[in-house]
Amino acid sequence: MGKGRLEAFSDGVIAILITIMVLELKVPEAGDVSDDLRHLAPVFFSYLLSFVYLGIYWTNHHHMLHLADRVTGGILWANLHLLFWLSLVPFTTHWLAERHFAAQPTAVYGLVFLFAGGAYQILQLRIIAAQGKGSRLRQAVGRDMKGKLSVGLYTVAVILAFVNVPVSIAIYVLVALMWLIPDTRIEKVLRG
Amino acid sequence: MGKGRLEAFSDGVIAILITIMVLELKVPEAGDVSDDLRHLAPVFFSYLLSFVYLGIYWTNHHHMLHLADRVTGGILWANLHLLFWLSLVPFTTHWLAERHFAAQPTAVYGLVFLFAGGAYQILQLRIIAAQGKGSRLRQAVGRDMKGKLSVGLYTVAVILAFVNVPVSIAIYVLVALMWLIPDTRIEKVLRG
Amino acid sequence: MGKGRLEAFSDGVIAILITIMVLELKVPEAGDVSDDLRHLAPVFFSYLLSFVYLGIYWTNHHHMLHLADRVTGGILWANLHLLFWLSLVPFTTHWLAERHFAAQPTAVYGLVFLFAGGAYQILQLRIIAAQGKGSRLRQAVGRDMKGKLSVGLYTVAVILAFVNVPVSIAIYVLVALMWLIPDTRIEKVLRG
Amino acid sequence: MGKGRLEAFSDGVIAILITIMVLELKVPEAGDVSDDLRHLAPVFFSYLLSFVYLGIYWTNHHHMLHLADRVTGGILWANLHLLFWLSLVPFTTHWLAERHFAAQPTAVYGLVFLFAGGAYQILQLRIIAAQGKGSRLRQAVGRDMKGKLSVGLYTVAVILAFVNVPVSIAIYVLVALMWLIPDTRIEKVLRG
Repeated sequence: MGKGRLEAFSDGVIAILITIMVLELKVPEAGDVSDDLRHLAPVFFSYLLSFVYLGIYWTNHHHMLHLADRVTGGILWANLHLLFWLSLVPFTTHWLAERHFAAQPTAVYGLVFLFAGGAYQILQLRIIAAQGKGSRLRQAVGRDMKGKLSVGLYTVAVILAFVNVPVSIAIYVLVALMWLIPDTRIEKVLRG
Repeated sequence: MGKGRLEAFSDGVIAILITIMVLELKVPEAGDVSDDLRHLAPVFFSYLLSFVYLGIYWTNHHHMLHLADRVTGGILWANLHLLFWLSLVPFTTHWLAERHFAAQPTAVYGLVFLFAGGAYQILQLRIIAAQGKGSRLRQAVGRDMKGKLSVGLYTVAVILAFVNVPVSIAIYVLVALMWLIPDTRIEKVLRG
Repeated sequence: MGKGRLEAFSDGVIAILITIMVLELKVPEAGDVSDDLRHLAPVFFSYLLSFVYLGIYWTNHHHMLHLADRVTGGILWANLHLLFWLSLVPFTTHWLAERHFAAQPTAVYGLVFLFAGGAYQILQLRIIAAQGKGSRLRQAVGRDMKGKLSVGLYTVAVILAFVNVPVSIAIYVLVALMWLIPDTRIEKVLRG
Repeated sequence: MGKGRLEAFSDGVIAILITIMVLELKVPEAGDVSDDLRHLAPVFFSYLLSFVYLGIYWTNHHHMLHLADRVTGGILWANLHLLFWLSLVPFTTHWLAERHFAAQPTAVYGLVFLFAGGAYQILQLRIIAAQGKGSRLRQAVGRDMKGKLSVGLYTVAVILAFVNVPVSIAIYVLVALMWLIPDTRIEKVLRG
């Protein structure tokens, strides 16, 4: 069974999520420039962070599926499971901005990425299992220490949200940067 | 006439529906944790249930179209008819959550899935008819007892909504589980 | 230049339009059943009518592009022009329902379909021109009396909206039925 | 690595952006015709302008990707960077209309297109770099004076917004017209 529709459907969902968030950018009440900026800054920051996160998930998904050969019913549902957690991102982003980075929404924001990260791991294992021995995806990601480290960092950040919000947010930014910068494992396998 | 655009359009519509529902998850007013949870729990539950239902429709549609050979004008419209009923799901989901599972929205919620289930049956028959004798889809679904049972269960749940809402909701969950677990008829035909 | 992206983009826009309309279906205030129905009936009717219209545009677009060979810059813009008018449909549908079929929104509703119909004719002529002599699309649609009749009927309905709204609405329903029923010109050319 | 998913994802995002803007067209309060028109005119104008701009970005993106051979991680992110700025267009369009073309939103409106224009240039350079010597895209766009001129005009318009709004808006319209009319550089390379 081809992977075309799985890719197209996932692209559709992520494209919608990444653009739907903008609906939550409310036009500021008429005021002076500094008022507008003070109002918009946290909203814009959380929008940017979530945009980058969804972008990371999309590029990683893109690369991972590139190495997948065939799609089983189990993979379809593991993918829907991932999309479910990602679909909550506009909601948690909005919550984070609306409450100006209070402890609770900061924790929930990370919790959703924790579950999304776990769902991504499950999808990856499903694809590797479907490929059997000599799986190219297994070869590319190895034991996926980076994926597991992200899930660990999310967990720390969720707990820290109730202690120190800025540190928690800093961890979310750190994980994003970690994925933004050196993302070439799969491209290496393809070239090799 | 190719089935590519039919698949792409259906994927687009279902992807939008599945993500548009999240717009109805309203950020809770600032309150203590238990207040937030009490507010969010029914909304989250109905969102999850509808997400799973739309996921089921998407995977089944994916499998069914996989066995379709060509697309006629009749199939295009039977597909649009199915999408029409599915397009009402965000509305009924929102209604269900907003009114905290009152009798009337519980019935309407099931009614829309009853019509969607019927529309799915019609689409299936249209594709089988277009394939003529020896239809692979007919071979895969047989008399589609599972599809017919679902339609029957929806009917029961809609009526029961006015008698006992929890039983009605339990039936919706049951039908979802029934489709989640053993969904391998078409994959068997493909392998065979 | 391939037509794949043009089709995909148009599918995306129409899929979004057809589903975005549902966001305007507002959950009725808690009331008795007949109140709910009286509130929802005009909204539901206008939603259904617009869904069918967008469905018609999508299937006709699907058929027309099927006969197109290549895509020029002019065709891209003629297509965007069509999508622009169609993109106003959720707005006019909402207006129609909100104002309970008052004269003005009834006229504007038709006006947008009048412009969309004109845009469709322009797109058709562009594709025929790009195909040059022996155009298969020209062969299929002939002088496209049906398309021209629709544009004429829209014009009549827009004017009649200020005289008699029900007659105007009846014409919109009539045009929709006219396209729903015998839509096989292009399929004949493909078979022949 | 294929460019199919990059195109599909970009198409999805731009299709959503172009249609999501319509959600901001609010149904006018019941009033006489001239009231409605006075209310709707600025909203409609800003909607039309942004629709044309997004249409231009889409057709240019379409043409540019047509000449791209392969997609690297860097190109994926340069593309997401472009989509990020474009994703702010519904917000700035809404702001512009809501505040009836005040100085500040007029400047922000142009600022987003300035960044989008810059992001487009970066994406173009990335694709040219990936193609190496004899790049067909380089051949088609040359030094891309038109792209650079647009970025310059945006800068002027952003500054002028605080001096004279109509002139600033006129520049936005001018840049749009400049791209609408003679857009055949890439088609020439393809034909040659």
